[in-house]
Amino acid sequence: MIQTPQKIAIVGSGLVGSLLAIYLQRRGHSITVFDRRPDIRTIEFSGRSINLAMSDRGWRALREIQIENEIKKIAIPLDKRAMHVIGKPLYFQKYGKEGEAIWSISRGVLNRKMIDLAEGTGVEFRFEEKVWDVNLPQAKIYTGETEKGTWQEYEYDIIFGCDGAFSRIRHKMQRRSRFDYSQDFIDVGYKELTIPANTDGSHKLDKNSFHIWPRGRFMFIAMPNLDGSFTCTLFMPFEGEVSFENITTKKEAKEFFKTYFPNVQKEIENLTTDFFKNPTSALVTMKCYPWTYWNKVALVGDAAHAVVPFYGQGMNAGFEDIYVLDELMKRYGDDWETIFRTYERQRKPNADAIAELSYRNFMEMSSKTADPQFLLQKKIEKRFAKKYPDKWIPVYSRVTFSNRPYAEALAVGDAQEEIMKKVMQLPNIEEKWDSREVEQHILSLL
Amino acid sequence: MIQTPQKIAIVGSGLVGSLLAIYLQRRGHSITVFDRRPDIRTIEFSGRSINLAMSDRGWRALREIQIENEIKKIAIPLDKRAMHVIGKPLYFQKYGKEGEAIWSISRGVLNRKMIDLAEGTGVEFRFEEKVWDVNLPQAKIYTGETEKGTWQEYEYDIIFGCDGAFSRIRHKMQRRSRFDYSQDFIDVGYKELTIPANTDGSHKLDKNSFHIWPRGRFMFIAMPNLDGSFTCTLFMPFEGEVSFENITTKKEAKEFFKTYFPNVQKEIENLTTDFFKNPTSALVTMKCYPWTYWNKVALVGDAAHAVVPFYGQGMNAGFEDIYVLDELMKRYGDDWETIFRTYERQRKPNADAIAELSYRNFMEMSSKTADPQFLLQKKIEKRFAKKYPDKWIPVYSRVTFSNRPYAEALAVGDAQEEIMKKVMQLPNIEEKWDSREVEQHILSLL
Repeated sequence: MIQTPQKIAIVGSGLVGSLLAIYLQRRGHSITVFDRRPDIRTIEFSGRSINLAMSDRGWRALREIQIENEIKKIAIPLDKRAMHVIGKPLYFQKYGKEGEAIWSISRGVLNRKMIDLAEGTGVEFRFEEKVWDVNLPQAKIYTGETEKGTWQEYEYDIIFGCDGAFSRIRHKMQRRSRFDYSQDFIDVGYKELTIPANTDGSHKLDKNSFHIWPRGRFMFIAMPNLDGSFTCTLFMPFEGEVSFENITTKKEAKEFFKTYFPNVQKEIENLTTDFFKNPTSALVTMKCYPWTYWNKVALVGDAAHAVVPFYGQGMNAGFEDIYVLDELMKRYGDDWETIFRTYERQRKPNADAIAELSYRNFMEMSSKTADPQFLLQKKIEKRFAKKYPDKWIPVYSRVTFSNRPYAEALAVGDAQEEIMKKVMQLPNIEEKWDSREVEQHILSLL
Repeated sequence: MIQTPQKIAIVGSGLVGSLLAIYLQRRGHSITVFDRRPDIRTIEFSGRSINLAMSDRGWRALREIQIENEIKKIAIPLDKRAMHVIGKPLYFQKYGKEGEAIWSISRGVLNRKMIDLAEGTGVEFRFEEKVWDVNLPQAKIYTGETEKGTWQEYEYDIIFGCDGAFSRIRHKMQRRSRFDYSQDFIDVGYKELTIPANTDGSHKLDKNSFHIWPRGRFMFIAMPNLDGSFTCTLFMPFEGEVSFENITTKKEAKEFFKTYFPNVQKEIENLTTDFFKNPTSALVTMKCYPWTYWNKVALVGDAAHAVVPFYGQGMNAGFEDIYVLDELMKRYGDDWETIFRTYERQRKPNADAIAELSYRNFMEMSSKTADPQFLLQKKIEKRFAKKYPDKWIPVYSRVTFSNRPYAEALAVGDAQEEIMKKVMQLPNIEEKWDSREVEQHILSLL
């Protein structure tokens, strides 16, 4: 259905805001994007961003507006994990089947590209204009230098809040009665670090892998960039024995890297410098409901649902929001109330599901990777999935290499877990884990 | 330990704010209480308040400052529930043992009294002064006519946020990193209604009972006032078949009362008038953490933990916060950092426990009161508790007639529930529920 052109404001020029702008402009609406920060194309990157892993849901949203191939040019496919486990030689774990990969992409590089593309279609960007308040029923926004200063009022037909986990737009909705909201921080923080390229511009580690150094309560990861460098992230508890709190000197930082990450020894100078230069950031799961206000205001992406990054789905989930919204615009045309109501009802259970899956991945990484029972279970699942690829699609693949609802992936995952619980209780499972008997047992439980 | 006098601001002059003021003034501090609303002693009551049920925890906090007896004069003891079940004659359920009762008290009457008492000890009240912002590390508060207007700055040594479930003080803490927060509304709202006194000033229903008309998804309750009237509350879903949404005319309201509450027919005119005069309010569970900021700011009462009212413990929990804070002041003197840290760590699990218990009571009332299995289980528990009062103290008594931690009551309740699950699985439990065998079985499981 064709829509009557609307005057639309998008608050936030991040990945979700700029992609939504392209989508809406394409439907004939007139779009203004507000951002309190300066144009990301004019500033140096901040060192606060994990590299992103674009997977099927993200690509589908880009394909819909024919920019998939253009973005693939600035991304690197990773078809496997490279596991750097202490006391073991480096080994690799394929992510999926042949041809399946997640794509490493720099948040900053992608964001600049998306803003360029949006501007090219006629979207107006108003950077360094701070939104302080919003009138929900009248779709008015108020901007100004300071919260207490003079404000400029703008009136729109529709406002989209794409302003992230600490959204100002949501903030206003939050003060209404019957608005459910939660923010939960985990006790692990993160810091961005860099491994530079070789002098010839090549990568120092395998380029097509997601590198992981799992260490139980803490973890180091590295994702490749086009220029030969790796963007790394150190996840570690804020407090406790091995923690950000307990590394305060260069000497302690060096000692830390030397002890736990012996195979990045050569990079220690760089890592240590970054360690003290870059901020330590917190990780939050944010849930809320409703996401929309009548036919006037809608939250999209992190503003509606922020997850911890351990499934690599934050951006993908936000892009999928946009894809779904667009489908609903096609179906319901000018009936924005129905578009918004259907959008929030359809997306909410999926947003909750990916939040849960992301949190579980965090728990799994922090406490289970050293548990032999857990590792055995994973081995059995893997073996079975390989032999019966139609009967056992792993949750990871359902989330990453599929566009089926997240809630479905979670439900199937729970069912698989129930089956594996029973399998793990079989006597002498340690010895017969790869037997025909165990295989038959799983088949009988499916 | 004696404390060095501090200049303290309390935000909120409700029950918790005014009681805390009395406690702190008594320790030699100089107290100013801010409230954005007018002095409650000068205005008519708003019709938004469920009558309160003061129980042991509340009384202990009042006893500590020798005002228990004075407050008892404005309260009415209720030693039982009066159950108005359709198709059954009125019947009574004792709350506890001989002499155990909860006390009905009007929030407004109590609040006026507490402010009088606080003022009498030298506390300064600044009514109709709106706090808009707070500087946490410097303990400054900012007040003014409007959020955007000119503000007055005040500096204190310590600030207490006693400004309720939608606390402004917490609001500021909430925007800091690593602050956990959740607000969850239930789909049931409430409305205050009144049953006036007889013309001779006597009560129309038994005065020493908490009257309940349970109707599954909705419920009507009545609590006595000193003047012969009853303050009633109708709890009902916002939407759905029988709901606030579906009662929009006087005729519908009358029909509703006539159908579901036949024994209050004579009051229908009053109830119907109140129904349209009084607002429908929402019910929220609010949790957050931390509750304090260094040695500067602390949240107390609903500002730190708001619960749904189905256990009658909201005020009691807030008063217990104050009692605990006072104990810690005795122990740690001028070490406010330790006082605050210990306070939040000690109280948080108990606040979470009473939130959970209150929510479960809501679920129980809405879905289980018609379940014969559930009712049988309750009958078995009651019989056993009566016979073995030392071995089986019901959760209700642990919460209401005890000062032991809420978290303990919840844990014991869960353990009791596990036992009863097993008991309910005994074959033919319906027939032998009051047998020696069942009794022995419970004893063996304890």
